Amino acid sequence: SSMDPQINRPSSRFLEFPHLSTSHRNLMLDLVSTMETTLSSHLLPSSLPPDIQYFQNQSATSQGSLHIRSGNENSLVDCILGSWIHCELPTGGALDITTLTAYLNTKTDSPRFLIEFLQSSPKSLILLLDLPPRKDLVINPDYLKTFYQETHLEEQRKKLQNVTEIKPYISSSLYIRCLLSPTAITVTVDSEAGGPIRMEEIIRDHVGPVAKDMLEIWLNQCVSCGGREMEESEKVELEKRDILIKKKTVEMDLASSLPRLFGEDVASRVIKAIEKAFHI
Amino acid sequence: SSMDPQINRPSSRFLEFPHLSTSHRNLMLDLVSTMETTLSSHLLPSSLPPDIQYFQNQSATSQGSLHIRSGNENSLVDCILGSWIHCELPTGGALDITTLTAYLNTKTDSPRFLIEFLQSSPKSLILLLDLPPRKDLVINPDYLKTFYQETHLEEQRKKLQNVTEIKPYISSSLYIRCLLSPTAITVTVDSEAGGPIRMEEIIRDHVGPVAKDMLEIWLNQCVSCGGREMEESEKVELEKRDILIKKKTVEMDLASSLPRLFGEDVASRVIKAIEKAFHI
Repeated sequence: SSMDPQINRPSSRFLEFPHLSTSHRNLMLDLVSTMETTLSSHLLPSSLPPDIQYFQNQSATSQGSLHIRSGNENSLVDCILGSWIHCELPTGGALDITTLTAYLNTKTDSPRFLIEFLQSSPKSLILLLDLPPRKDLVINPDYLKTFYQETHLEEQRKKLQNVTEIKPYISSSLYIRCLLSPTAITVTVDSEAGGPIRMEEIIRDHVGPVAKDMLEIWLNQCVSCGGREMEESEKVELEKRDILIKKKTVEMDLASSLPRLFGEDVASRVIKAIEKAFHI
Repeated sequence: SSMDPQINRPSSRFLEFPHLSTSHRNLMLDLVSTMETTLSSHLLPSSLPPDIQYFQNQSATSQGSLHIRSGNENSLVDCILGSWIHCELPTGGALDITTLTAYLNTKTDSPRFLIEFLQSSPKSLILLLDLPPRKDLVINPDYLKTFYQETHLEEQRKKLQNVTEIKPYISSSLYIRCLLSPTAITVTVDSEAGGPIRMEEIIRDHVGPVAKDMLEIWLNQCVSCGGREMEESEKVELEKRDILIKKKTVEMDLASSLPRLFGEDVASRVIKAIEKAFHI
């Protein structure tokens, strides 16, 4: 199928990350590449049309890119989803949101993977980095033990705690707080004193190693180790929970902001592509 | 029954709070009194024997008090439980843990109430203050809305955020993190510069008003408004969850620390009294 531009240039626009700093772009490329290489036997090729791989508003003050790879029939992977959005702000600066996330299907109940950067200036960003649980941890202490205690995720969280410029961040959305695990990394990085150069260092020397370690833990302990046996009723509950999370995610993250940034037409096209990948 | 010392001197030892500072003792007395007065028609008298109302180790370096009132037949209250523990430390100081918590039964699924102080010096303490949820908030966004968004608990949390000496605290127990709501107040209060006098001010002027407001919210929105209709299967799930939380709480908070502090005999007596009130 050498005639098919989707396969010849897979996700080229997504991987450009044209608005990120060097170390930030290198980190994202590393994470996407590690995830896709390790999961290559699990993933179908991208089938997104070009106008969803890259989109912008009329004046090009807002730009975005979406990247989706669905899992194949035998895989535990439901889909992996990457995106970036760049919005020039009326105040002069710009907001960049960069996300890489992975959803699993009901062949396993193991956690998802999520990394998201919200950057409002070269000297300041918010980082969410987590293996969000797919079960209620209160009534599943064994699940907490397997995926959060025995994987030593708390040690990863503590590594970033020791960097002066990194402070705890509490999302304004109560629902997002509920979605995250007890070892979630939710921090602000504020390099006001050291400027953009210090931010580059923090991403390269602190955030990067932790993000890569957590991706490795997720790949090894949640995906590559194979499925987890469940009773049929558990699978039904798990699927209901997964679907609800996907619906709420679209509703919270996209349904109001995308139309505002890109206009109704572009927004509706992008949201439909995500809903299709999410089976919702 | 004027011959019954339990009823003549209800919980006298508990309400002494002999090791707390004035404003801290006043706050605890206020909270216990508000809770017991408002719920007076719900509660049975205390039936704890004197050696559980107050207990100590052989050398009296560790002292403790337990206070339990179970709900009566028509009540939504399962039990309210107050306790304080005072332990002299080998290093010279002392640790004081003061708790007031309330459990509800399956006539309602509304949240519990919890306040806990862990104080290791007159200038430093940890505060946990929350209405811990009784359902998985991820799959119950309506519950999140009713009890956390519409009650504006986030505003209470933010009030304490603005006090210089108050910083976010993250419990070392992942399970405790899971038990708390997204609006939980989990903070350290560190009045190193201002000393014990400043700590008194912070408890009186900042912690106290927030704790009292949150107790009012809990009493009005979770208990006094009556039960919440549930299907039988929901009640079964809720009861399983409540029981598991009680068991884990005894296991984490008491099973290892009480024998160490008070010896096996005292510890076993106290734990049995709690397990009896918890129906576990």
